[in-house]
Amino acid sequence: MRVMVLGGDGYLGWPTAMAFRARKHEVSVIDNYFRRTIAKQCDSDALVPAPLLPERAALFERITGNAIEVFVGDCCNFDFLSRTVEAWSPDVVVHFAEQPSAPFSMAGYDEARTTFANNLTGTFNVIWSVLRHVPDCHIIKLGTMGEYGTPNIDIEEGWIEVEHKGRRDRFLYPRRPGSLYHATKVLDTDLLWFYARAYGLRVTDLMQGPVYGLSTDEADLHQHLLPNFHYDDIFGTVINRFLVQAVAGMPLTVYGKGGQTRGYLNIRDTLQCIALAAASPPPKGELRIFNQFTETFSINELAERVRRVGNRLGLKVAIQHLDNPREELEEHYYNPAHRGLLELGLEPNLLTEEVIEGMLTRIRFYRDRIVRRRIHPRVRWRISERRDAVDSYDGGAVRSA
Amino acid sequence: MRVMVLGGDGYLGWPTAMAFRARKHEVSVIDNYFRRTIAKQCDSDALVPAPLLPERAALFERITGNAIEVFVGDCCNFDFLSRTVEAWSPDVVVHFAEQPSAPFSMAGYDEARTTFANNLTGTFNVIWSVLRHVPDCHIIKLGTMGEYGTPNIDIEEGWIEVEHKGRRDRFLYPRRPGSLYHATKVLDTDLLWFYARAYGLRVTDLMQGPVYGLSTDEADLHQHLLPNFHYDDIFGTVINRFLVQAVAGMPLTVYGKGGQTRGYLNIRDTLQCIALAAASPPPKGELRIFNQFTETFSINELAERVRRVGNRLGLKVAIQHLDNPREELEEHYYNPAHRGLLELGLEPNLLTEEVIEGMLTRIRFYRDRIVRRRIHPRVRWRISERRDAVDSYDGGAVRSA
Repeated sequence: MRVMVLGGDGYLGWPTAMAFRARKHEVSVIDNYFRRTIAKQCDSDALVPAPLLPERAALFERITGNAIEVFVGDCCNFDFLSRTVEAWSPDVVVHFAEQPSAPFSMAGYDEARTTFANNLTGTFNVIWSVLRHVPDCHIIKLGTMGEYGTPNIDIEEGWIEVEHKGRRDRFLYPRRPGSLYHATKVLDTDLLWFYARAYGLRVTDLMQGPVYGLSTDEADLHQHLLPNFHYDDIFGTVINRFLVQAVAGMPLTVYGKGGQTRGYLNIRDTLQCIALAAASPPPKGELRIFNQFTETFSINELAERVRRVGNRLGLKVAIQHLDNPREELEEHYYNPAHRGLLELGLEPNLLTEEVIEGMLTRIRFYRDRIVRRRIHPRVRWRISERRDAVDSYDGGAVRSA
Repeated sequence: MRVMVLGGDGYLGWPTAMAFRARKHEVSVIDNYFRRTIAKQCDSDALVPAPLLPERAALFERITGNAIEVFVGDCCNFDFLSRTVEAWSPDVVVHFAEQPSAPFSMAGYDEARTTFANNLTGTFNVIWSVLRHVPDCHIIKLGTMGEYGTPNIDIEEGWIEVEHKGRRDRFLYPRRPGSLYHATKVLDTDLLWFYARAYGLRVTDLMQGPVYGLSTDEADLHQHLLPNFHYDDIFGTVINRFLVQAVAGMPLTVYGKGGQTRGYLNIRDTLQCIALAAASPPPKGELRIFNQFTETFSINELAERVRRVGNRLGLKVAIQHLDNPREELEEHYYNPAHRGLLELGLEPNLLTEEVIEGMLTRIRFYRDRIVRRRIHPRVRWRISERRDAVDSYDGGAVRSA
């Protein structure tokens, strides 16, 4: 297959590109380093410095003999994207090219505008680049479990059969996102479904839970091939942040009561899921949705697991509950389905004590690079504070923190 | 109240502005003549030429003594909109400022891009202008019944209680739009609801059916105060198009079998509905949704009504079924609720024979202005033709027709 990875510099994009290439698919990556730019503005730096794409691709080729083509450019530029898709003619486009941080999207007008314009324009351009040049191409879009929010009924995989007043119909599962970032992914899904219905696009939308980890078969070949592992309040996902806090001797900061429950997965399973989706494309005209996670945990359970393993390694890990900066339910029903990818053959890498120990060990190797001020929450979006938020955000709260 | 009408040059925007002003509210309008520009590009001209806003407002003031403030500018320009909202400080913003044509949005990439960017950016800017400067302001957003599509269950007013595996929750009613135009309104609704939840916006989203008519109390004062009445395939709604066809001696062109059923309303009832919504704002943090129509008809029923009245007036009206250019069900279940506005006091102006006769009579007065080539469908979006569509649309099919 010819696999084009949009957002190929990202935490997941780069490992995805390497994994496809290692399996002998042709691979290209597109990125404009947008996430690096905004992460720099937010004083968020990855734990391990990563070279730019041409250097990473050259290193990967030197080690493995496998070339990855690099296109540096902006998916929001339709001419650029359309020309590149036309010239490279992918069978599969894996679309990661979105502003990935919920707190960033809630920081103020500038950040909201950036998130909204980047994510929606990028998806619109991907749709039309594919329609024009490679209409049979399979678009694999990274959505998020956060599109669903935390409804009081079971979360199905994308679709739900509703019986109402004695009649039935099947609908997109209703979504209730908790941040603008998550909302843009809801809008992406709506748009992709419309173009699947109207023009026969072929789409897989992967509703992914928070990902953890920094080890993949290819990343482990060289420290400059590691994923962009962020651990701060803006770009770090919760497990990665807890691991870094444990290593840094800081208490694990639980937002609110800690009963918030989500579905999580190992970065290795992200790679498996995308490979499985790519190997079994849906028919044209179909929006196929999988819920992409392997286990559900509450925040308290995660903190407890990291503490247990950390203490066994002699790290003296404490847990601290903070006022929740986010508007979210801290105790709620959560029962999401996740059968589709298992049926395709996913073999989960679970969050065992061994896995946690492996991650802590690797992070300890880089512990001098941990910047402690980056970890405390800087963006608040509790409704009770919303007026303050709108006012104070205008000055660019994140950047000046 | 201080009422700001965005898209105040439009078929509904201008009559809405006059109606509020006639009731002694302070009124301002914002428009950049975007619809005039694209209508000109599509060879679509309104039946009665309308002066630009400053001249219309001056005329209205001369006749009634009531001034309407005019701001000419683009709601997609955040600085402009935000400054204007700040300076004028509305209590109510009525948001009509969207590309309003489904066929236009389906014509090709350029038209899709224009529709997508204009509608989403405008709504995003309205949200942030209000959040920043007038956070208690009531946003009245014009949605469309087309957001729902034609589901096989009863359509409720915006929300639905779902029982699933023994548990219950309340969700936004699922939407399945039939054109990109309708899809942008789905995305608008998602976005407004998110900002209502997250920042306490106060929103009414009016899911309006196709509107007909060209008479309102204020429009009837002078022909230069009439709404921008389009009758072509791109900007004309179906009843208005049938009326013009009847007057022009052309057959009424029914797309496909004609069993397509929708909810319709008189332009006078649009004004009533918006006034009723404005007089009873929802609390902060609420997205209130009303289904805004008064009667449902199939296309065949509409054609039959216009034929009957037309023939009584000696017009010799025929009905012709065309291949349906649109992807839509031609026979379907349709039972949408519309209680909310009736409960607020809406007194419907129904599509009686007298009303049809009144419209035909007024249109006959302008029959020399009817351009017959404008009426036949130029934009096709049947799925079976979609590949052709994507290819041929790129050249700008609408513009060159």
